[in-house]
Amino acid sequence: MPTLRELGEVEAVRRLTATRAETPGVVIGAGDDAAVVRPSPRNDLVATTDAFVEGRHYRPEWIDPEALGARLALANLSDLAAMAAVPRWALIARGVRADHDIDELLAFERGVSRVLSSHDATVVGGNLAAVEGPEWSALTLIGEVESGGAWTRAAARPGDLVAVTGAPGRAGAAVRLLGEIDRAELMREWPGLWEAWSVPPDRIAAASALAATGGVTAAIDLSDGLALDLARVCEASGVGAELESGAVPSDPELTRAAERWGEALKSVASGASDDYELLMAVDPNAREACARAAAERGVPLTFVGRFTDAPGILAWRSERGSREPLLARGYDHFAG
Amino acid sequence: MPTLRELGEVEAVRRLTATRAETPGVVIGAGDDAAVVRPSPRNDLVATTDAFVEGRHYRPEWIDPEALGARLALANLSDLAAMAAVPRWALIARGVRADHDIDELLAFERGVSRVLSSHDATVVGGNLAAVEGPEWSALTLIGEVESGGAWTRAAARPGDLVAVTGAPGRAGAAVRLLGEIDRAELMREWPGLWEAWSVPPDRIAAASALAATGGVTAAIDLSDGLALDLARVCEASGVGAELESGAVPSDPELTRAAERWGEALKSVASGASDDYELLMAVDPNAREACARAAAERGVPLTFVGRFTDAPGILAWRSERGSREPLLARGYDHFAG
Repeated sequence: MPTLRELGEVEAVRRLTATRAETPGVVIGAGDDAAVVRPSPRNDLVATTDAFVEGRHYRPEWIDPEALGARLALANLSDLAAMAAVPRWALIARGVRADHDIDELLAFERGVSRVLSSHDATVVGGNLAAVEGPEWSALTLIGEVESGGAWTRAAARPGDLVAVTGAPGRAGAAVRLLGEIDRAELMREWPGLWEAWSVPPDRIAAASALAATGGVTAAIDLSDGLALDLARVCEASGVGAELESGAVPSDPELTRAAERWGEALKSVASGASDDYELLMAVDPNAREACARAAAERGVPLTFVGRFTDAPGILAWRSERGSREPLLARGYDHFAG
Repeated sequence: MPTLRELGEVEAVRRLTATRAETPGVVIGAGDDAAVVRPSPRNDLVATTDAFVEGRHYRPEWIDPEALGARLALANLSDLAAMAAVPRWALIARGVRADHDIDELLAFERGVSRVLSSHDATVVGGNLAAVEGPEWSALTLIGEVESGGAWTRAAARPGDLVAVTGAPGRAGAAVRLLGEIDRAELMREWPGLWEAWSVPPDRIAAASALAATGGVTAAIDLSDGLALDLARVCEASGVGAELESGAVPSDPELTRAAERWGEALKSVASGASDDYELLMAVDPNAREACARAAAERGVPLTFVGRFTDAPGILAWRSERGSREPLLARGYDHFAG
């Protein structure tokens, strides 16, 4: 387990790139000035980049390097799922300290590759830079979608249903709890919330199946919380939305967390989160088809409300029909 | 000139993405979960990523934000030029401090866009993360090349000529001088070296013209120095190389720097560098065609030696025919 300083850059990069698998569609993989890949004819490319910064998005004591690599890949996958795309190729740029253990770098790379390989996607390039302060990792993921078939945030229509996968809010609750208790206690007492944070769901297959129904009109991934991401869809689409307070997906641990904080479940479920679940606008006529498509992939899909023709107005609606504002609060990385 | 903390993440990202131009081939640009772009039929994609870390690759007092953005774009362009590709789409991931001025972020983005737009390429996505220590910027650049037409490092043949663009070694000399004198003196006394470091050359058009001759058999960009990058081509191609000591491109300031350090010009010219010039293997029969193609683009092209059938053996050859080893020294980011 030599450090990067002991190995030197050339050997470190050689060991990292040696683990990269060749897959169909890769003409020239790691080791040249750039990667050369061959896209499928008649597809559009879908590209996204996401980064994790040590001490900001994670702490080394929270998550081991392989799980961190997997989590970064899953965070990027989530952006592609929200476009109904499938992943193909990734590039990793990292800033690491010279005393970083090469085995940990290899473990991180393995984590990324494990997630990608389940979709026949692969790492084709990267860059390793030396840092002295906190480490960081930026992953750029390139995928494909049938030409013209990408979902956007901008096409939700009044009357479309609001649907979410999974039970949003759990990853955010885990991070909040980590400010109050240590990881060992979190893993013991709140295992479901811990898993929601540490192993985001992979919604690629579900998104493809839902796209095939033709009933999804808009989508976003829940990286900043249900309320804030719903507000983004509403803004982009020029619509409003009403969520049913009683319809928000529940979860025993999330309910218990809300009780601990003396807050309403719906507030915790819709607040800051890193769930990487999908929020979609669904044509009411496609409700059954979408429910079936999700169920066949084993993915929980819940219809939680409806888009309205009141642009920018987001509200909770109780079972008795009363309304209250739905506040779009999310995490601001630059807040003081 | 508000800071990111004052503006908040949402508004900062809105201002950044508002400057991104729509260009042909972009189906969905900034502002959705991912970008959607439409590649040309029958082309391969070429992808690379490169990163600059504050205090490691640059210091804020050396270069203003717009020039830094341009320089990062040019560093990435150089990797595509070395594959004979043209740039199309870029994604920027940055780690910036909360007290960072939004106007400086916009200037950085302008610098990137200015370089890309000269090739009808554009920024289609990005990610902004908060850091507390040194800032960093990672650019991923996606380009296109005719299917099967990418240059590699691996196909140089014994007898092929070694050709370089520009006068390598100048950027590395500038960085070395910055360890001895301040930037004001460097800009005054060594303006050519300063420019070589701060404004890397754009060799995209020259590479396309050289590729059209069909005479280039292998290529690499000179990001780590002539000697080290030549050694990489030799290793990948299973060949050796002999450079003529007297043929190395000269430059009055580089000559003066070598004198200052009491070193041979050829050592300074072949040492650590960030020149982003091209090193190519050229079929001897294509020598004239390549010289013409480069001249038509106004790009200096010098034939400095020849690849040999002695794998891994790199040597200098004097005018009188004597040989000495060519040592492949370059910059190691992780050296202690």
